[in-house]
Formats: sequence, C-alpha cells, structure tokens
Amino acid sequence: MAAALDGEIEFVCGAFSSDPNKSRLSGEDFYLSSDRVYGSYKEMIETEKTLPEGERMDFVSIVTPNHVHFGPAKMALENGFHVVCDKPLSFDMDEANNLVDLVQKTGLIFALMHNYTGYPMVKQARHIIKNGDLGKIRKIVVEYTQGWLMDFIESTNQKQAAWRTDPKRSGIAGAMGDIGTHAENLAEYITGLKILELCADVSTLVDGRLLDDDGSVLLRFDNGARGILFASQISAGEENSLAIRVYGTKAGLIWGQLEPNTLEVKYQDGPKKIYRTGVGDLSPEAQAHTRIPAGHPEGYLEAFANIYRNFAKCVQARLDGTKVDPIYDDFPTVEDGARGMNFIYKVIESGKSDKKWVKV
Amino acid sequence: MAAALDGEIEFVCGAFSSDPNKSRLSGEDFYLSSDRVYGSYKEMIETEKTLPEGERMDFVSIVTPNHVHFGPAKMALENGFHVVCDKPLSFDMDEANNLVDLVQKTGLIFALMHNYTGYPMVKQARHIIKNGDLGKIRKIVVEYTQGWLMDFIESTNQKQAAWRTDPKRSGIAGAMGDIGTHAENLAEYITGLKILELCADVSTLVDGRLLDDDGSVLLRFDNGARGILFASQISAGEENSLAIRVYGTKAGLIWGQLEPNTLEVKYQDGPKKIYRTGVGDLSPEAQAHTRIPAGHPEGYLEAFANIYRNFAKCVQARLDGTKVDPIYDDFPTVEDGARGMNFIYKVIESGKSDKKWVKV
Amino acid sequence: MAAALDGEIEFVCGAFSSDPNKSRLSGEDFYLSSDRVYGSYKEMIETEKTLPEGERMDFVSIVTPNHVHFGPAKMALENGFHVVCDKPLSFDMDEANNLVDLVQKTGLIFALMHNYTGYPMVKQARHIIKNGDLGKIRKIVVEYTQGWLMDFIESTNQKQAAWRTDPKRSGIAGAMGDIGTHAENLAEYITGLKILELCADVSTLVDGRLLDDDGSVLLRFDNGARGILFASQISAGEENSLAIRVYGTKAGLIWGQLEPNTLEVKYQDGPKKIYRTGVGDLSPEAQAHTRIPAGHPEGYLEAFANIYRNFAKCVQARLDGTKVDPIYDDFPTVEDGARGMNFIYKVIESGKSDKKWVKV
Amino acid sequence: MAAALDGEIEFVCGAFSSDPNKSRLSGEDFYLSSDRVYGSYKEMIETEKTLPEGERMDFVSIVTPNHVHFGPAKMALENGFHVVCDKPLSFDMDEANNLVDLVQKTGLIFALMHNYTGYPMVKQARHIIKNGDLGKIRKIVVEYTQGWLMDFIESTNQKQAAWRTDPKRSGIAGAMGDIGTHAENLAEYITGLKILELCADVSTLVDGRLLDDDGSVLLRFDNGARGILFASQISAGEENSLAIRVYGTKAGLIWGQLEPNTLEVKYQDGPKKIYRTGVGDLSPEAQAHTRIPAGHPEGYLEAFANIYRNFAKCVQARLDGTKVDPIYDDFPTVEDGARGMNFIYKVIESGKSDKKWVKV
Repeated sequence: MAAALDGEIEFVCGAFSSDPNKSRLSGEDFYLSSDRVYGSYKEMIETEKTLPEGERMDFVSIVTPNHVHFGPAKMALENGFHVVCDKPLSFDMDEANNLVDLVQKTGLIFALMHNYTGYPMVKQARHIIKNGDLGKIRKIVVEYTQGWLMDFIESTNQKQAAWRTDPKRSGIAGAMGDIGTHAENLAEYITGLKILELCADVSTLVDGRLLDDDGSVLLRFDNGARGILFASQISAGEENSLAIRVYGTKAGLIWGQLEPNTLEVKYQDGPKKIYRTGVGDLSPEAQAHTRIPAGHPEGYLEAFANIYRNFAKCVQARLDGTKVDPIYDDFPTVEDGARGMNFIYKVIESGKSDKKWVKV
Repeated sequence: MAAALDGEIEFVCGAFSSDPNKSRLSGEDFYLSSDRVYGSYKEMIETEKTLPEGERMDFVSIVTPNHVHFGPAKMALENGFHVVCDKPLSFDMDEANNLVDLVQKTGLIFALMHNYTGYPMVKQARHIIKNGDLGKIRKIVVEYTQGWLMDFIESTNQKQAAWRTDPKRSGIAGAMGDIGTHAENLAEYITGLKILELCADVSTLVDGRLLDDDGSVLLRFDNGARGILFASQISAGEENSLAIRVYGTKAGLIWGQLEPNTLEVKYQDGPKKIYRTGVGDLSPEAQAHTRIPAGHPEGYLEAFANIYRNFAKCVQARLDGTKVDPIYDDFPTVEDGARGMNFIYKVIESGKSDKKWVKV
Repeated sequence: MAAALDGEIEFVCGAFSSDPNKSRLSGEDFYLSSDRVYGSYKEMIETEKTLPEGERMDFVSIVTPNHVHFGPAKMALENGFHVVCDKPLSFDMDEANNLVDLVQKTGLIFALMHNYTGYPMVKQARHIIKNGDLGKIRKIVVEYTQGWLMDFIESTNQKQAAWRTDPKRSGIAGAMGDIGTHAENLAEYITGLKILELCADVSTLVDGRLLDDDGSVLLRFDNGARGILFASQISAGEENSLAIRVYGTKAGLIWGQLEPNTLEVKYQDGPKKIYRTGVGDLSPEAQAHTRIPAGHPEGYLEAFANIYRNFAKCVQARLDGTKVDPIYDDFPTVEDGARGMNFIYKVIESGKSDKKWVKV
Repeated sequence: MAAALDGEIEFVCGAFSSDPNKSRLSGEDFYLSSDRVYGSYKEMIETEKTLPEGERMDFVSIVTPNHVHFGPAKMALENGFHVVCDKPLSFDMDEANNLVDLVQKTGLIFALMHNYTGYPMVKQARHIIKNGDLGKIRKIVVEYTQGWLMDFIESTNQKQAAWRTDPKRSGIAGAMGDIGTHAENLAEYITGLKILELCADVSTLVDGRLLDDDGSVLLRFDNGARGILFASQISAGEENSLAIRVYGTKAGLIWGQLEPNTLEVKYQDGPKKIYRTGVGDLSPEAQAHTRIPAGHPEGYLEAFANIYRNFAKCVQARLDGTKVDPIYDDFPTVEDGARGMNFIYKVIESGKSDKKWVKV
C-alpha cells in the first residue's frame, strides 16, 4: 500500500511464499501477471534479470523475517537490482558488514525501512535542531513501547510473534532489535548526534520467551548529551508508542508517533509552540513530505510511503541519468542499518555485563 | 491516492482539463496511456464506451467543482458507467433530483464522497449507537470549523478559494455547502436520525465575499433530539476540525477528525472509555475498515480509500454477478446527496427568514 | 475554603440553617464562637450590626438557593454590609433591578460569584483580546455542558438537584440560569463585547422536570460578531465543561475550565501558541491571579478564591481609606448580575417565541 | 495556604527569619499576634512550650532548606511537638537516622511533605494496583522533569536556585535530592514495591553548577519488576512534570501531575479507561481526598492540603484520645524520609561507580 500510494512505483512481480501455490494465490490478490509470480526469490531474481530493460523490475523490496534479509539482498545487489529492506538490516553483524561492502562495491541504491523517519513532523524536528533553535542538545529521551507481547503468544499460532521471538529467525535480540533500533535510529536522525556509550538493562519478562521483551538503556552522545532509550513489548495497553523528547540549551521538543502530525517545541520563558503538518511556514523538508492540506491527518502509511517515494525518485534519477533533488535523497541507508545492528550487539553485550558503560 | 491504496482500482483513463495539452501533461504524470487521456469528459465517455468490455473503464470518478458534477454524472449514468462523485451532489436541487431519478432508473452504483464517514472510529460510533449503548439520543453537537477563508483570498489566484466562493460554480451556499453538508451527513450517519427542523444564522463575515463563510444551525431531529450544527471557514487557526458529540439517556460519545483513531464514550457514573482503531474487540464494521495494526495511525487518505474500496467491491460484485458482503455495502449514496442538497437549501432559506423554524 | 485560601478573610459568624440546632452544629464544624452562630440571616445582620467596629463582620457572603439571595442581600446592604452573592443574582428581574439600585444608592461593594472569571488564563485571554492580538472578533462559541441532571434525580433526595430544578426556588430558568449565565458572563468578560440579539432553543429533555435542562442559543454581538452559546445538564458523561473559543481577523483562542491552566492561541499561518499558568511573560493580570510556580496546577478553588481575594482587597482599601490597586478591582458586579438576569429572561422568551431574533 | 484550606489548622505562631525584624513583618502578613512571632525556631519552641495546653502550638511545620530540617525537627520532637517537615528529610543520612530514632522514641507524629501523594488519582492508582487490577507489576517508568535550572541562575539572586544547588545547604545531591526523591516516593507509594538495586547516570550539565541537575536511573524492584527513573532540572520548557507509568501482567496505568485529575488505565484487548477525580464509583481513598464535585479541577494546593489534613486528623485524634479513621492515617512518614535519603545516597554512589548495579 505504501509503495503504491504515490503512483511512482508499480508492483510488477513477487515471490510471496516458498510454497509455489501460496505464492501464486498471493500474486492473484495483487493482480500480478501469473508469469511474474515466482516460487522463490532466487527464481525471481534470475528470471527478472533476463527480461528486457524497461520491463524487468527496477528494485527488490524485502519484507521477510530478519534471517531472510541477507540472502535476497545480496543476490539482488549482485544482479544489479536496487534494494529496499526491512529493519533490522540483517540476522547478524557479519551479514550487515557484508551488505555495506556490497552496496559500496556495486554503487546500487539501498534503503532500509526505518519508516518512522518519513513523517513530516520528524523532518520538521530535524530541521529545527539543525537550525540551532534548541541550542546545544543536552538530553534525549526516546522510547518505543508496545504491549502486544505481554503474553506468551508465540506458543499460539500468532505468526508475527512466532518469528520475532525466535532467535533462529530474529537474531540475538527481540524487542531491542525489533523496535529498539527504530528508537535509536530516530534519535540519531532527528538530533544528528551519535551514541558513544551505553549501559543497558535487558530483560525477558514473559516466562518461556527466548529473547528480550523489554530493555532500558542509558546513553551518552558524542556531544556530551545524556540520554535514555527504552523499548518494551510487554507494556500492557501500549499500542505502538514511539516518542522522543530532546532538550537543548534554548528549548525542548517533543514528538510522538501516535499523534504524528503534531510537534511541540517548549520554551522556559514563553508559550509553547505547536507545529502541525501542513500549517504555516514549515521547513522545505517537512513540506516535501506532506501530501494533503492541513487538518487532514496523514498517518503511518503516508510516512512509510515517503521512504518509498524518496527511494523511487533516486532510482528514477539513476535510470534517467539525472540528479535527484537533494530534498528527496533522504532515507535510511545500509550504513544506518549497520549502525543499528551494532547498537543491538552493544545493548545485548551491556545487558550481560557487570561493567557500567559499553563503548559503541 | 485514495483510490489506488488498496490495489483494487486501476487508474486507466481521464479527462483532466478542458485544455487538451494540460490534460495530456496530467495524464503523463499519472503514467496513463496517451490514447486514454481525453480532452473532455464527453470525449472520454464516448470513446471508452466503444472499448471492449474488460478493457474500458468500469466507473467514472468526478472531482470537479460543483457546477461540473451533473454533466459528467448524467452522461456516465446514461452510458452505463457507475459513478463516484464529490460532494455536494450538484449545483442545484433540480440536478440533484434528476440524478436520484437517473440512478434509480439505471440501477447503476453511485457513491457520493462524504469521505469522513470512512473512518473506522466513525463506524464504531455508529455501531455503539445502533447497539443502544448510548440509550435514546437526546442531544447532538456537530461542528466543522476551518480558518483558511478568513481572508479574502479569492481575490488572489488561490484556485480552491476562487471556485468555492463563487455562486456560479459553487451554488447557493459557500461554507454551508462545502463543509456544512459533511457535518449534516456525519450526524445523520452516526446516529441514524434525520433532521426535521432547523433554524440557521448564516453569515458572510469577510468583506466582498459572495457566499456565506460561517453558519450556525439549531436542529431538531425526528426522535425529538436537539442539536447544534456549526460550520465556519473563517475560524482563524482551525485546520479542518470536523467533530461530533452525541448524548443519550445512558452515555455520551465524542469523535473528531483531527485525531480520527480515538473515540471517547463517556459515562456519568464511571470511567470514560477510549476506543482506538485496531485495539480490542471492535465492531466488525470498524475492523473491516482498518488496514494496519493498532498504534499505526490511519488518516484521511485511508478513510477516503474506504469509500473507494467499498464502492469498488460493489462494482466488482456487480461485474462478477455475485452479492457483496453487506459490511462493504456502506458508502454515501445519491439519496444522501439529495438530502444534503435539501439541507443546504433549507439552511439558506432559514438564514434569510424571520421565522424561527424551517421544516426540512 | 476559597475565602480562607489567602488568609485575607476570617470566618467570624454565620447563619447556616433555619433550624437553630443545625446552624449551631455547622458553626462548630467551622470552629466559630457559639455566640456568633445565628438562627437566621436576619438575626445575624441585626446582631452583628450592634457589635463594635473591627469586631463585627465586614461583609456577608450569600451561598443560598436563588430565592434566598434578595432578602439577605437587601438587608445586608441596608445595614451597611458589603456583599458577596452567588449567581444568578436573584430569583427574578425585579429583585435584580432593586439590588442594582441599592448598591448604587449605598455605595457598598457587591461581588457576584461568577467564579470562572477568576482563572489566570481567563485573565490572559482577556488581555490578549484587549491587546488586539486576535484582531476584530468575528465568532464566539461558548459552551457549558454537564451531565449530572441526565436522570430525574430531583425525585430522590438529591438536595442540589431539588432546588435547582424547582421554579419556586430557582426562578424561571433551570440550566440556562444555573450555568447558561456563567457562559454568557465568560463570553462578555473575555471579549469585552455585549450580546445584542439572540435566538434560543430551550428544552426540557428529562420527563417530569419543571425547568429547562438544555438550551442552545444563536448570538449576535454589538460589534457584529456571531456566536453560539449552549448549556446542558443532560449531556451524559460531561463533568463541568465550560469552554470558549473566540475567532478574530488575526487569530483564534480556546480555553476550557477542565484544563484551566492552558490557553491556546491559534494562527492560520504559523504554529499554535500554548500559554500556561505561570510560564513566561504573561500579562500582569494573569500574574496577579496566580499563586504558585508553573507546573503546579491551580484549580477551581484558587479561581474562586481570586474573586474573594479581589473583593477582600477592595473592602480592605475601603476600610483603610485607601485606593485599591486597579489590578484587583476585578470581580463581577451587581450590574453584571442584572445583565445575567436579563439574559436569562430573553433566552426563556426566545425559547417560547416563533420569531427568530429577540433583542437583549 | 494548603494548611489553612480545610479549616482544621490554625496558624498561631512562627519564626520566619533569623532577622527578627523580617520575621515580625512576615508575621504581620499572616495576621499573627505579635507576641507569637519569634526570631528563631529555638525561641519559638522554648516559649510555646511554656504556654498552657490548648493555647500553645500543636505541631511545627518546617519549610526551610535541607540543612535546617534537622535542628528544628529534633528540638520540636524533644519538646513534645509533632512535626511536618519538607523533603528530603535531612541534610545527610546521619540526621535522617537520628530523626527516625527520635520519632520512634517519642512516639510523636511526623509527616514528610511528599505532597504529590496527596492527589485523589494517586490514591485511586494505588487502590487499583493493590486490588490486583494490573496483575503482577513488571515495569515502572517514573519521571520528574523541570527546566527552571537550565541556566546558571544560582549566580543571580534567585533564592530558590541558590540554596538548592548549594552542597552546603542542599546536601550531596541537587536534582536527584530535590525531585528525584519525589519520583522514588511516588513509585513506591503507588505500587507498594521497593527498589532493590539501581544503576545511575548522574550529571551536571550546566557549567559551574556544584550539584547534579540531571539523572537517569535503571531500577530493579523487590518483585523482579524493572524500572526507569529520571529527574531533570535542565529539560528546557518542562514545567514540573512528575509522571508515572506502571505496567502489569493484566493492564497498565498512567498518571501525571500536570493533569492530576485524570488517571488512565490501559488494556491490551479493550478500550482504555479514564478515571477522573469525582467521577463515578472511585475507591474510598480517592473519595476521601476529594473536596469538590467532578469537573471542578483540584490542584497542587489541594493535594498538599490532603497531607496536612490527614496529619491534622491524626494529631487531633491523639489530642482527643481517639483513633483516627485509617483512611486518613495516610501520609509520608519519617521512615519514608529515611528511605528517600538512602535512595539519594545510593544514586550518587552509583553515579560515581564503574560497577553496574548498586544495592539499595
């Protein structure tokens, strides 16, 4: 849905299941031509590669569990296809490093789906901070809380829960990999700062679970700012609450994904300002990622679509031999993905350590 | 964007401007085949009609100013095409009545784009009331406030302002037709009640403007409930605030379009309940109009898309000779459009009258 | 509690019941000297009058049902005592006019307890409008909704419900007198405008009730602004929601009593501003009515106490023969009370009329 | 103001400054008898002690900087006076332990002013958790953020800033002592759990400051629950945001001091419930700490007054030789104060340590 939203991307082929029959049925749902519905990503890449330019797919979008990111991503890149990939980047750090190398070597375009950075008010927040309106950043609180794994639902047939809590499919981390990395990415994206050191308490609070479902992390950033990051999938009643607060020497700001069209900037000595998607003289970046007039809420799919749209514009420019407007050259990269993987590793390392600080 | 969201509707042709060159350029933006970009709706309907079944368009979507609803709607219906049409239904009451007759005569499917009824929480609100959870309805407050016409911007080149404030293109009403009808439709849709009588104060508060830009209406409903409806386009700082409150003998409810995924039900003798899109055991209607998991905000385009999706399912069922699941047979009809036109007429009549109540 | 809050008013005597025993027991609860607990207001005023200056009470506070405002107010004024009186001013219009005359004749100080104007953010709103920051006012929406009379509780022993719905104790109006006047007073106080004409739909929605419990009123103000006022005591689930929105040619503002420390000013072309009690460079009026630092919520009693405190400062200045700082010479007067009574009469008249507009 | 609110406590004497003249002037402001305005707490306690029973003060309220808690508290207790004391309990741990001993030895009543536990919705939250409605508690997030010390204002004449950032008057901690202990107390009070271990990052982010102004603490509670506590006085634009979230195996809850009359309980599988002060069938504890009807906001002073009122009722019962209703035997004790002092010590110790966890 997100990819289709702007009419810039056409869904032309796919491999939807390792069961060819299931794959075929999914392809029908998407009204794909039956000869372009494949039984495996390998078959897809091999066959599409043989199609004439202009007809064959332009890029691959990987929306599988973590342990099936690396294989298709590698093969796509090696066969000349650009890639959009779900986060976290890969199953383990080696795969992540391999992908970074491969992208650098091939020069192909790679977008990692940290979709939350696609919201217009995230762009506005980043602009405000870049502009110095908050002064020097001193404190960051970023959180991502959910409650959907509060019970041991991986023991039932819940498909999403099953792979996300399975170390063989998800990797070394559960909540910290699934949503903790979104929080890390958002904090670094909005502030432009990098995490230098961390100290984590990583827990599995649901009996029987094999991976972490809750974690709290003290952070120190490269400019000296302090931070807290917490991610939880057992916070009963929380839907999908990704939220960030940034405090500088001049002002503070708050943004949360549950009301994504609102951005609050707070001052110690005057009224708060509430920025709203589409209202007033927002930054060019915020405007470029807004589709409809003020007061018509844009949501998750629109933000997601912004990543796809920007990626598509970059791919199109590459196809056309032109340069993309820099305002659209804005999506998470394979390097962001490797940073995220490293963050996961350091959090898990810290969680097991008696030492307070772990360097990132 | 809304029509494309669910992958059920393909954009195959269009007439985008009375200037053939402009129309062609728009068609290119949409990646349409050039032979299906037309210079006028007449050309489009005539030509498409000659195409073989399965290739020709299945329906027409009319997104023009009010004075250009009737022509294409009539011609589409007369040539066997289903229709989706922007609100209000038409330029005047005669056209509205003609369209009702034509739809009844042809048996074709006609959807009027009161898009706000597409929100999942509007479906939930309707369900709760239908279920009797509010008791007998006694009081309804519905409002639609905007500020974008607070200045005389029709004197500049603002295209939307120009036609919406022009009696030759908009009809007898400004704000009351443009957004007042949305409020009327929402109130009747959610409560299942009908307005019997009204008393309106209709004003033009910006100097030089030719149509109303603010109106307040006292309402009496067919079950004896009292109501207030107000619509304004000069309420400085309001974005697009459509909101409704319904009070019954057992409980009250509140919903507003600016935070569309939240529905509040209030009790006199216990805690309020906050329903959220995707959370918990919502009504089948709410669930059927939700795309993504809880906590991932769905917005205006998704609600809009729900109307298109339901319409598309009805058209598809007609094409397939099957019956559509009644849960999807849910979109505003040509009769709703005629009710809306009548509401506009009665509001304007009341605004000019010294008598207190006008029967609807 | 409100009178005591600032330590400027000492509770020295009272008449708490027509039953002398009950009155005595109440007096004990307040730790009053037993010889200053009276069996009737008459006894109280007569006796206190004979006490030496400096010992006798300085003013009378009348907190009885509407039909027992006039008697004690008149007698207090005639005997040289200043008066604080609950709203509405009196049982009927004649009493109201009498009291206006009496206050003018005696020159005594009279405060009417429209307590909601005591909030700091109401002062700030008034200041902002006075300052022209909203431009010319065009539209006012003021509402006061409650749900506590949604059932026929006057048939039980609910004391407050019993007298407030009883025409013999409350007067000609129920909800419109009890809370509608608060809304009217707030709108005129904040904007400085006066209501010129109105058109009301006044209803009794609970079977068996003798007075109105719901009303909606279209308003026209003396500067041409349009308005809506609605008051309801049958809005299920509403606690005590007095709220106002004012829209001018430059900006709009919103304030509501349920979150009284927040004032929102909205602009069409830039971020909203959120003023908060105690934060930043507020108007002198807002600051003078704030007791504690920012972020420590002040509520109903504090606002109520502001009226008492201002009244007390005026009485003290009178006693001292000095002039009070004009910032404290700010509380509703007997004239405001008479305006309120007239508003009630005109609303009830309009409610029964077939004519649209009634002059105020 | 808080002590006076309920009419249960009369202000009879005081020592307001070490400068006798200043003390006298303050006494006049409070309308105290001049012979009971003292030049020092020593003079006050010595003199009051000699007054006849019923006339002399019943208790002492200590509202001085931290380094002047111990002296007057000790002397008051040793001379038979009950004590209300500001938090944190004392300047250092030794003083705290001494006071605990002294209260136990004398049997006198001692209330520590953790005023935020006085809010009705805090009582309701505690009731809900005690009742098991949240299930077993797994995760607690408690925060107390302010921005008022974001600049080096202790270098100006700001009196509050001067002593609170001065190790000679405040003790070993700044923000963590001043507000961190409120957060700790609130978390333990609401949940009934105790902190077992902690890991803190304690920072001074404003140049030149002598004590911490920001701290983040990972917590482990005695039932295995994880927690985060953060307190900051440099969070630009934050007023006084004490807030807590508690997640259990059944549900979660959220309360914040900025909107103290609202308590949110969240469920994974149904609508959220919003409890409001005064609405519906609240717990007896919540009701006993509410003064006015629903929808009339109660704030900081009312919560503060609840601590005083409960303390006063206990003192009164002691004077009367009766037993107080257990619902009122509810205020922070000297032992809570000692726990708070220990918390401060452990946080500061952890802040300086390379070891991850410090036992509490």
